[in-house]
Amino acid sequence: MRVPLTAALLLSPVLSVAAQFGPPRIPDTLKSPVIAADSRVTFQLFAPKAGSVVLRTEGPAPFANLPLTKGAEGVWSITTNPLPSDLYIYWYDVDSVAVSDPSNAKPRVNLRTVRSLLDVPGAAAEFFAERAVPHGALADVWYQSKSLGLPRRMHVYTPPGYDRGGSTRYPVLYLLHGAGDDDQSWTMVGRANFIIDNLIASGKAKPMIVVMPAGHTPKPGGLFSPNPEVDPFIDDFLGDVMPFVERNYRIIPDRANRAIAGLSMGGWHTLRIGLPNLDKFSQMGVFSSGLFGPAGTIEKFETANAATLDDPKINDRIKVFWIATGKEDFVMPTTKATLAMLDRHKVKYAYKDTEGGHTWPNWRAYLNEFVPLLFRADVH
Amino acid sequence: MRVPLTAALLLSPVLSVAAQFGPPRIPDTLKSPVIAADSRVTFQLFAPKAGSVVLRTEGPAPFANLPLTKGAEGVWSITTNPLPSDLYIYWYDVDSVAVSDPSNAKPRVNLRTVRSLLDVPGAAAEFFAERAVPHGALADVWYQSKSLGLPRRMHVYTPPGYDRGGSTRYPVLYLLHGAGDDDQSWTMVGRANFIIDNLIASGKAKPMIVVMPAGHTPKPGGLFSPNPEVDPFIDDFLGDVMPFVERNYRIIPDRANRAIAGLSMGGWHTLRIGLPNLDKFSQMGVFSSGLFGPAGTIEKFETANAATLDDPKINDRIKVFWIATGKEDFVMPTTKATLAMLDRHKVKYAYKDTEGGHTWPNWRAYLNEFVPLLFRADVH
Repeated sequence: MRVPLTAALLLSPVLSVAAQFGPPRIPDTLKSPVIAADSRVTFQLFAPKAGSVVLRTEGPAPFANLPLTKGAEGVWSITTNPLPSDLYIYWYDVDSVAVSDPSNAKPRVNLRTVRSLLDVPGAAAEFFAERAVPHGALADVWYQSKSLGLPRRMHVYTPPGYDRGGSTRYPVLYLLHGAGDDDQSWTMVGRANFIIDNLIASGKAKPMIVVMPAGHTPKPGGLFSPNPEVDPFIDDFLGDVMPFVERNYRIIPDRANRAIAGLSMGGWHTLRIGLPNLDKFSQMGVFSSGLFGPAGTIEKFETANAATLDDPKINDRIKVFWIATGKEDFVMPTTKATLAMLDRHKVKYAYKDTEGGHTWPNWRAYLNEFVPLLFRADVH
Repeated sequence: MRVPLTAALLLSPVLSVAAQFGPPRIPDTLKSPVIAADSRVTFQLFAPKAGSVVLRTEGPAPFANLPLTKGAEGVWSITTNPLPSDLYIYWYDVDSVAVSDPSNAKPRVNLRTVRSLLDVPGAAAEFFAERAVPHGALADVWYQSKSLGLPRRMHVYTPPGYDRGGSTRYPVLYLLHGAGDDDQSWTMVGRANFIIDNLIASGKAKPMIVVMPAGHTPKPGGLFSPNPEVDPFIDDFLGDVMPFVERNYRIIPDRANRAIAGLSMGGWHTLRIGLPNLDKFSQMGVFSSGLFGPAGTIEKFETANAATLDDPKINDRIKVFWIATGKEDFVMPTTKATLAMLDRHKVKYAYKDTEGGHTWPNWRAYLNEFVPLLFRADVH
């Protein structure tokens, strides 16, 4: 701890938790963000020497780029208009330094940095809220990847009651993250676990295991490399992640009970893993994505997978192929080019344009719509 | 994401992940911390308008309070001497604003704020390192606390192989956090999961389930309240946490297979829960703690628990009672007063003074020494 806790302070009977570790200073007692009953939110930051403090956000937010005002004792603050319910990602720009809110211990961690999360409850946020329903467990799981020669981590959701044991087996959804994220993003920001808890509790989804691996590797290749066809993650996924899951979890090991989906880079991984491996997967979800790559990428994919794409039984083999992209999403041209490729081979899919862009609000909504389609006896 | 990813950028084949989301800016490409082969560490922060940038640390660290030097283009930096292997907690003080390192996505989250973690590998850090051994799963687990009327979260470690199911049952250790922390601290900073993985892999500990509940509640009472005897967490623990664990996990539900331990406030909880409930617990660990409270607290505890403390069989009932505090720890007077109370009743315990103070390096080491004592057929 920062300032040694003195015995005298510890024994003082009326200390707040925030003040345990020394005489309370302004940054120790400041509350931020504070959500008022009318959903106005007050942000505060102690920065006595700063020249300017501005709110920044990831994705759409009505408080993006609002400046804070300096008040007494070096505390900068701003109160927004009432905010629509949502899970927002924000930070402060303090004289050009990106600062996560030191008074807010809800972080949003991605590959580069730490942001802060602001959860404004309400009707629009109910589907991903932590409600009083049975919850699955969300585990950090470590494994040794032989294909990468590295220790790796994935996140695994097991449905309510799973840890009691027994012999019941479950279908499995492999859920892949985007390029700016890692294996914890689908739950930390995407709230995949609560979305699926709520769907299971309302009878809209079957109990399932959800496996969220880490899609980046330190090896050459992958989405941003000159040869995106070579992707060490795909070797890790097929050679290590899936066998680990099959050995260690009570899944039903057949294609009818295996689905794969992802957002952005994860949708690209879904297409590159799912379509060439229809012996393993029967259900796919592609969110805000497509066959990204340099000129000629789609044609290369088409040639390499011609036998699969032109298999007269392909539309019987694929039970769910759900694709969505926001109308304002910069990936729309790639999505459309990918749909055109599927059309050339008469591969059926369900596609929808949604409002909005390349954002977590869309990915949460897509997951909520996609998961109820999976593992349904009536369609398989 | 912050700056919309353009299709052109996405398709560029040579972009680094760090630069995906817009033209690369200095803060996007800066690497910090960088550990050199000789264990010198370079910290860097882009803060063009700052007047001073200083390293701050939680717990002991050879780089505490070192000032960074401003270089070209607003980048502040410092390179330390070679650092002993350890897991350090640090942040920057930028003109009096506490800033987690924006280039380091390993956070240390506590109740108030976000710090950064620096993991310097080496011999002294081996016992808590993520090694190539079978790993247990570490789950976030949500439950509804009837006693608090609130949804709550705990962390649960299950040993390697647990998720395969079956009917094998395991002993359980309840592991409680300190006042500045929450249910994720024992693993995020304490590395309890890796410590226990390593102990199990080397045969020094039995496979066990470890339950790490959240020790703070929003209700009045507890360590820092005027009436520390009243603690809503204890009701939650006995009335909700333990029954939830017994219903949902394959534990062995008897006192020989139940241990409880904690650090600081968690050690205080251990004493307040363990001693009055020896029908449930046979093994206890008290790290950097004691019966904290206003004058008269220990005497009140002694009176309330006289029948237990003076039970002639108490030393048969308690199989492990392991207590440790650092010589420089400010809680030492409370520890000594608590040991004196146990001595008055001839309650046996193992006690050790260690080097150091009220710090995570001590708590990791204590856990590593305590866990091998548990659930041993030869002593029970």
